[in-house]
Formats: sequence, structure tokens, C-alpha cells
Amino acid sequence: MRYVSYENNGGPRLGVVIGSEVVDVAANVPGAPATMLELIRAGADVSSKVEAACAQAAERVPLARCRLLSPLSNPGKFVCLGLNYAEHAKEGGHDLPDYPSMFLRATTSLIGPGDPMIVPSCSSHLDYEAELTIVIGERCRHVPESEAKSVIFGYTVFNDGSVRDYQRRTNQWTAGKNFDGTGALGPWIVTADEVPDNAKGLGIRTRLNGQVMQDSNTDYMIFSVYRTIAILSEIMTLEPGDLIATGTPNGVGHARKPPVWMRPGDVVEVEVDGIGTLSNPIAAEVEARERAIA
Amino acid sequence: MRYVSYENNGGPRLGVVIGSEVVDVAANVPGAPATMLELIRAGADVSSKVEAACAQAAERVPLARCRLLSPLSNPGKFVCLGLNYAEHAKEGGHDLPDYPSMFLRATTSLIGPGDPMIVPSCSSHLDYEAELTIVIGERCRHVPESEAKSVIFGYTVFNDGSVRDYQRRTNQWTAGKNFDGTGALGPWIVTADEVPDNAKGLGIRTRLNGQVMQDSNTDYMIFSVYRTIAILSEIMTLEPGDLIATGTPNGVGHARKPPVWMRPGDVVEVEVDGIGTLSNPIAAEVEARERAIA
Repeated sequence: MRYVSYENNGGPRLGVVIGSEVVDVAANVPGAPATMLELIRAGADVSSKVEAACAQAAERVPLARCRLLSPLSNPGKFVCLGLNYAEHAKEGGHDLPDYPSMFLRATTSLIGPGDPMIVPSCSSHLDYEAELTIVIGERCRHVPESEAKSVIFGYTVFNDGSVRDYQRRTNQWTAGKNFDGTGALGPWIVTADEVPDNAKGLGIRTRLNGQVMQDSNTDYMIFSVYRTIAILSEIMTLEPGDLIATGTPNGVGHARKPPVWMRPGDVVEVEVDGIGTLSNPIAAEVEARERAIA
Repeated sequence: MRYVSYENNGGPRLGVVIGSEVVDVAANVPGAPATMLELIRAGADVSSKVEAACAQAAERVPLARCRLLSPLSNPGKFVCLGLNYAEHAKEGGHDLPDYPSMFLRATTSLIGPGDPMIVPSCSSHLDYEAELTIVIGERCRHVPESEAKSVIFGYTVFNDGSVRDYQRRTNQWTAGKNFDGTGALGPWIVTADEVPDNAKGLGIRTRLNGQVMQDSNTDYMIFSVYRTIAILSEIMTLEPGDLIATGTPNGVGHARKPPVWMRPGDVVEVEVDGIGTLSNPIAAEVEARERAIA
């Protein structure tokens, strides 16, 4: 099943995608959760009811006509792995890790499908990073790798937009990973039952203005999806709606010679096979402000 | 004014401290915000009304009889600075920074006054860090240092409990800074009008089982409170209730010879003059689990 957040009648709605159409959950399921986070928190029984009711719904809107929103704009936390593909670790001059590097994303950095990714006023070094992203479905701690499957609600795609000069201004990456409007999530959430076990064998790609910049496969992840959940849940309780971005493959802009930075007017697409394609235009911070005022 | 979150009649309450007594905000101010986050979001006019009404309240509970809760357990984001006191940077073998190192704390790592700080099963290297913490009062971006004062709601104290072996397992500190139950916040929030300009000249201390382990002054911060807000708000929008921990002075356990780690049964106190003293017992993860079951 594919779940979307979308705009309808001026407000955000939760929808189920059936074929090429969207069914409004609230309009078809009395007492249904109003948001993605509520749906995930409500658990599997509620999801099953929602899916069954929406499959019967007569009123459907073409997906192509919906303005999609970030599928999950307010996660309780968003953990991101760094250096989780061997070729990407090498291109950045790093040794192969025996433990994942991690950082957190604040919600103020997040945007949705089609929203402009912002080149901040203070930097021109905005880079793309295509990432498969796990959506947690169950509150859990100390999850063995063998049971990790059961705590996953689904998957989405993340463009972990990185302001490279700020990322490397100190040895902590957090600053460069948390600029407003740099982290794009979407276009939707695909439930785990529709994705291969451990999310193996999925092609993952970035296109910048149509040109392929990253082209790899989740098979090359150093720490698999299930291993990542085991490692993280040794540290912290994972909660429904928490997001875990699993790192990006090689081909990022800053490792190219010469480096490639995203510039206002560009369009960047990140995609994971079987999950979806997320497209965002690039805009300058000042332009984005002017649009907001206009 | 001092604001507390506390437990009363089985539920969490927002209170104002007047002298050595607490006034229940909801019981005395019709339509008042029910939580600290709602109070901060409601803005200065509502705070003024709450303070005026509570000052007249007849029904008061001795502060000493209240079980205090984390003053703000669900911040939108929690940014922490590292290496913000010169002597602490030196004791860890770091150069003096020209830009602050930063990381984020997830809410799952946070506890309140009196809650046990947890030594996780996988490590015995739990360390303390006393930190002055800013509570943001206004949504803002690109705040000049000269105007930073106006966006601060108040201050509290943070014990940035750090699992040092995990903090240094990769070059990203996030893992060691996000174990469940390691970040203690409180005991309350003191509004900015009661704190010196730029939070200058405040003694900051840690005592472990009564012994002074850290003893410094906010004058030794490399990036002052106002400068920190200017730097962070270049990167990200700050929102009401966001927390910014401003780094810890020298004297941490891991830099001692031999190192000092907090152990189950210990009691750790962190304090900032004019703000408050936050005390927490230390417990093993397994003990904490048993207590939760009992």
C-alpha cells in the first residue's frame, strides 16, 4: 500500500494510492486517523481497516492532479546514517567503517515533494544525497536484527541535501545537514509488505537536470536496514513515525572533479526502485523568501 | 519568574514558583496554556496574564512537596554545542574552535529532575556535563547578535550525559549523546528577565556524590548565548520551545586521570547560579527496567 499526504480543499489530507488514483482516508473511513503520524501510531489493525475501506471507495482523485506534501513532516526523530555505502566512503576519503556514523535532522530542515530545496544565502555548496529511508512502525528498544522486520511500517525516499562547507566547518556534520529547506522527503510511504526483505536489491539513483549523478543499489549498503535498526535500538527507543535515512551511495557532487553544486533553477530527482521518485526544484534562499511574501 | 512542570493528581501540571510555593496555572487562569510548550508558544502577553493571575492565587503548594517533571520534554529541536569552553576543549585534546561544533538530542534521550540517569547495558562510560541551556521564545531566522536577547524565553540547566565510548566510536558524537535516559533537563525554566544580559557571569558546577567535579563560569564560554543564537539562526529557523545547550566547562570525567565514570547508586548535581540545581540519581539500565515493571 502507498500512503500520501496531500493538499485538498486548502488543508492537508491523508490518502491511499490505488492504481493511479488517490482515496481520501478521512472521507471514507469514519474515525480514521487524520495524519500519517496518527495512522502509524494507530497500529496494524487500523491500517488494515483503512486499506479495506479505501479499496471500496467510489470517489477517487487522479494522483497526477494531487499536490503531494511531505509524507511525514513531524517525525519524533530523524536519524541519518553517514558513510553507509563503501564507494561513497572511499570518494570522501574515509576508511570503511565498522560502526555507522550518525547524525540527526531537525524538522525545520525538512520539505516535501516539489518544494524548493534552498541554497542558503551564506553558501553555494548545496549537494544532493539519495537515501532509502525507513519509517518505524512500533515503539521498540534492543531489537535483534532477526526481528527488525516487525518494527518497520514502510519506506520512503530522502534527499539529504547537504551544505558541504558548513558540514565540514567542524568535525560534526550537524550544521551542514540542518539548513532550512534542504532535506526533501517523499513522494509517499510504501508499506514494508510491498518491499523486498531487508530492502535488498533496490536500484537507487539521483538525476540532476536529467543527468544521472548517483546510480547504485541498496545491496551495497554496509549496514543493512535490519542491522541498522539493531544498532540504533541498542542506543535509543525507536517510536512510530521515527525516520532512519540509510546513507547515500557514491556520486555526490562534492567528490566530483570539478565539484558539482546544485544551483537555483536546477531540478533534482532521487529515486529508489519500488519506492518512488522524489523531484525538487532548487531555489535561492532570497528567492524563496520573495515567493513567500508575494 | 520560574515555571515548573510538576505532577499533581496523577497528571502533569504547569506551575509558577512564587517564593517557596507553586501555583497551579490551569487552576488559577481560565483558558491558560496547559503545558510549558503551549505557554511559550502563546507569547509574552499570555505569560504576563498568567504571572499576574498566579501572583493573586490563594491556593499554593510547597515547592518541596512537588514532584518536578522535565520542564520541557518535547522540544521541537534540541541543539547542543560542543567544545564551547576553552579549558574543556583543551582537556579533550581539541584546538580552540572558530565555529561551534553542534549535534542534536532526540527527545527519547531526555529525562527530568530526580529521574534516574541510565548507565546503558552496553557501556560503563557514562559521563556528566553541566550546561546552561537557552529556551527559545520566538520563531526566528537570521537573528543578529544585537537582537538575540529578544528571542529568548528563558534558561534552564542540562546535564548532557554522554556515553563516551559510543561518542567516540565514529567521529560523529550523536550516538554517545542519544542513549535513552541520559540527558537531564531542569529543574525549571527561569525567564530571561531574571538572568543577566547574555547570561554572563554565572557560576556553573557539577557535583558527583557531593564532590565538586566542574566549577567554572559562563564568562568562559567561547561563543556567548547571543552569538550562539546568531550562528544557529543563520542555519535554521528557531521555534518557541527549542532548546540550545551551550556546552560544558572543563572537569568532565573522561579527561581525568584515571577517568571517572558515573555508576549506579551515584547522585549527580549540575547547577548554574541564578538558574537552579538539577539532581539525578544514576541507575543501571536493567535496574531501571525492573523498576518500570514493578
